[in-house]
Amino acid sequence: MKADLECLSCLMKQALNSVNIATDDPLLKREVLDRVSAIIPEADLNRTPAEISKPVYRIVSEITGNADPYKKAREETNREALGLLPLLEEKLRRSASPLQTALHMAVAGNIVDIGIGHAFDLQKDVLALLDVPFADDDSDSFAGELIAGRNLLYLGDNSGEIVFDRLLVKTLLSYGIKVTYTVKSGPIINDALMEDAQTAGITALVPVLETGADDIGINLDHCSPAFRKALADADVIIAKGHGNFETCSDLPYNFYFLLKAKCAVVARELGVTLGDIVFKKTTARS
Amino acid sequence: MKADLECLSCLMKQALNSVNIATDDPLLKREVLDRVSAIIPEADLNRTPAEISKPVYRIVSEITGNADPYKKAREETNREALGLLPLLEEKLRRSASPLQTALHMAVAGNIVDIGIGHAFDLQKDVLALLDVPFADDDSDSFAGELIAGRNLLYLGDNSGEIVFDRLLVKTLLSYGIKVTYTVKSGPIINDALMEDAQTAGITALVPVLETGADDIGINLDHCSPAFRKALADADVIIAKGHGNFETCSDLPYNFYFLLKAKCAVVARELGVTLGDIVFKKTTARS
Repeated sequence: MKADLECLSCLMKQALNSVNIATDDPLLKREVLDRVSAIIPEADLNRTPAEISKPVYRIVSEITGNADPYKKAREETNREALGLLPLLEEKLRRSASPLQTALHMAVAGNIVDIGIGHAFDLQKDVLALLDVPFADDDSDSFAGELIAGRNLLYLGDNSGEIVFDRLLVKTLLSYGIKVTYTVKSGPIINDALMEDAQTAGITALVPVLETGADDIGINLDHCSPAFRKALADADVIIAKGHGNFETCSDLPYNFYFLLKAKCAVVARELGVTLGDIVFKKTTARS
Repeated sequence: MKADLECLSCLMKQALNSVNIATDDPLLKREVLDRVSAIIPEADLNRTPAEISKPVYRIVSEITGNADPYKKAREETNREALGLLPLLEEKLRRSASPLQTALHMAVAGNIVDIGIGHAFDLQKDVLALLDVPFADDDSDSFAGELIAGRNLLYLGDNSGEIVFDRLLVKTLLSYGIKVTYTVKSGPIINDALMEDAQTAGITALVPVLETGADDIGINLDHCSPAFRKALADADVIIAKGHGNFETCSDLPYNFYFLLKAKCAVVARELGVTLGDIVFKKTTARS
């Protein structure tokens, strides 16, 4: 999808959020905000929101000297999510429709970042989301894709969230599907890395492949040949979260996008209301 | 009060909101956002949020050629607020504590801008707010100021809201207070002008004075001698809304700030939670 005028304003918002995590120095913060303001006129709205946002995080790292400001947040969200895992596993075991339940658990993981330090609220929020229907629901079509022996590529999103993905991955394996999970090759915001896949127990379940890049979502120009091959060879792809939707919605593969619409621009593109959850089959396939 | 780093990010947000009201032309919108991004590095955080925001609205008007983008919004919010007036007048008549009720009605006016086109919600929201206590409540101190014959200067804020101010003005008159209401001399966002004071019926009740300027809040350097004299001569001043609080909180007069904390920066300065309503006596008086 293409970026929107609102994304220009969001660059400053992202810069502010990120620099507040990366440093306490008000002079460095100001320097970051001024530098980000200077890239606004250069931002090409024919590119994806994820692409025009990436320089914000490069600027934060350059100016603060903090190459991975979200490392602590990644560890904390993993820990929090792992704390909820036994409860969710039990709920999934008892579920009359495990695929729907596991899809909901995976998308509920998308709210983990909000919950840092509020374990009780997190639990409440995650459980509440399990009963919310998808505003766009292609799970019937997806269920038809689940034929033993087929290849499913699973594009991960954030740390923390990745723990919930494990439940969906396990559910997919029960269909005899061959699942490959993917993580980023380098830190970008709080996106899951190989170490998060290990912490979440995904590496013990399925092969985990790095994208070869550290983009928000996927930028094929930066990805490894192995990742590009995996994408082309997959019978079906689950893509989690905003970044993957923003960057893959126009790719000619068999995508199912699983996300919560967290901003007005993405909600509009999806044709849903801000805050809705969706499980949407790609419309871009040729 | 001084601006904050968050205000820099808010400049882009204000630019986006304002240009969406001023024009439908995406190229002009982009031009505005780029121009506003260029003033971010120049913004002096030792000035007030209102002062650093004003150029945003100048840029919107210059580039779109629309000198008063909020004219229609001002008229609509006045109309909506007038529709609620009989209900509120009746409630005020029946109130056991008319001063508290009128203060709440005046601050409830602050939410009118959200309600455009949603008359039912507006009514619901305004009525709900009447029962919300002030998070900071200097109304006892204020009640002690209400001695017949004293001069009260009332700094208005938005159109729409001004209709609710009328109820508080009338209540103050019942104490024998001499009230002067003030409006802006030229359009700035949806701030009330003389025509709004007429529409709201304030001119029929009390003298209405223009500030001499078109600033967000008050910039004494731009105000008329008559306004500056009224400020210095007032025994007590009610200042409505964000802009007046931001620009007057350090002035050495007897201010009572009546507002809803609509952003995190102002909430922090007030020592309250975002969304709280306050009626706060100045702490700056020498």
